[in-house]
Amino acid sequence: MSEEKKVRAALIIIGNEILSGRTQDANLQHLAKELNGVGVILSEARVIPDVEAMIVAAVNELRAAYDYVFTTGGIGPTHDDITAECVAKAFDLPLIRNREAQALLEAHYARTGRELNESRLRMANTPEGAALVKNPISTAPGFRVENVYVMAGVPMVMQAMLEGLKPELIGGKTTLSRAVASYIGEGNMAKGLGELQEKYAALDIGSYPFYKAGNRFGTTIVLRHTDEALLDEAVEAVAELMRSLGGEPEFQDMSDA
Amino acid sequence: MSEEKKVRAALIIIGNEILSGRTQDANLQHLAKELNGVGVILSEARVIPDVEAMIVAAVNELRAAYDYVFTTGGIGPTHDDITAECVAKAFDLPLIRNREAQALLEAHYARTGRELNESRLRMANTPEGAALVKNPISTAPGFRVENVYVMAGVPMVMQAMLEGLKPELIGGKTTLSRAVASYIGEGNMAKGLGELQEKYAALDIGSYPFYKAGNRFGTTIVLRHTDEALLDEAVEAVAELMRSLGGEPEFQDMSDA
Repeated sequence: MSEEKKVRAALIIIGNEILSGRTQDANLQHLAKELNGVGVILSEARVIPDVEAMIVAAVNELRAAYDYVFTTGGIGPTHDDITAECVAKAFDLPLIRNREAQALLEAHYARTGRELNESRLRMANTPEGAALVKNPISTAPGFRVENVYVMAGVPMVMQAMLEGLKPELIGGKTTLSRAVASYIGEGNMAKGLGELQEKYAALDIGSYPFYKAGNRFGTTIVLRHTDEALLDEAVEAVAELMRSLGGEPEFQDMSDA
Repeated sequence: MSEEKKVRAALIIIGNEILSGRTQDANLQHLAKELNGVGVILSEARVIPDVEAMIVAAVNELRAAYDYVFTTGGIGPTHDDITAECVAKAFDLPLIRNREAQALLEAHYARTGRELNESRLRMANTPEGAALVKNPISTAPGFRVENVYVMAGVPMVMQAMLEGLKPELIGGKTTLSRAVASYIGEGNMAKGLGELQEKYAALDIGSYPFYKAGNRFGTTIVLRHTDEALLDEAVEAVAELMRSLGGEPEFQDMSDA
């Protein structure tokens, strides 16, 4: 059986507010699930501050290593919004006033009666040749240069942008997940589970301990692969291991992760 | 005024379950706030899978770049728990059975009447010469090699480990935060705010738009620095900018972020 090419992505979360602990990131989990649905594997994420050298370095390192790179944050109108300049520098492209983006902003601000000042016009700046990513929530667009997609940090806007750009992504086979849990300690399952990982080497088998009220502890085993029949066979083998150790396997719905 | 040395840290989140979207990370935000309380600035975070080459590379890159590196995840008894081996490889140290860790596990499993099998004994493996990080929740310890602290991924355990190791950390001055918000759009504040950032160049001034029910939108400005008097002066300058634009500044409590 030939191994299908894996399509892999990285996420760069740009924002001091995540690193200071002020804001809990909500974009990684959403992106991971959405990408998985189109056969793209989120393989790495970085959270970095609004610092030009770090953004440029992360964009250049990750766009060479992955099929797709997504960034969130730093595309508003204020002095701390420097993502567009940084992506332009990473690609060694001039930063230009994008006419299509400017037209979108002009129409939006004319409609709402607010002033389209110079600060807001900065949101129309993109690297030369960038394709726009639509923003149905608040108009100011994201953009794409080669394999790098630049999106907003506000989750509602990021999600809408992602929904719009998803049809452009060319993924591999969708990774399917199954989870099976029982009240057996990780340490009791470990040996048999390691043997199953060796037998089913192509699968990604993860082991996650849990604790419940009443001092009950157990383990959830998560299995991931693109081949449903192989996955079903391995899940049954894990369940059998649990039964052999005195556990009652519970099969969990994992349709979206 | 001489600039106090900044003490900076990086976090490596090891775990396929975060990248698949199955689990929402809760350790970054907690670590960021706790470090800030002892004068250490969380400056970068990476989320990477359970892949040896990636863990080794991240540990080596980040331990050279930052004062402290923290890892979470991958220290349990199963085949996918490879953090200890990887940290040993990163430091080019042998992985040994740590006698102190083994004694802790032996006492714990004797007390609970469960079996201390070979898989569970793997949790006593550390790089040679590592110092242990106590685990008051489930016994199996984390460890430290030089400036790298290895902690559990389960938030309750990670938090207890961090609480125990915190007194070892030598931080700089604590970064203080202030936030002030008003119902003025980011784009209306941007010019004046950029001027204030230039005037108060030493401060980290962030601008965060918000939306509320009833189509009300506004902006929260977050200011961060170690000098309380300077911070108070800058906050008042931002509030004055808001008033000049017709807004009513609301001062928010930011004691822990």
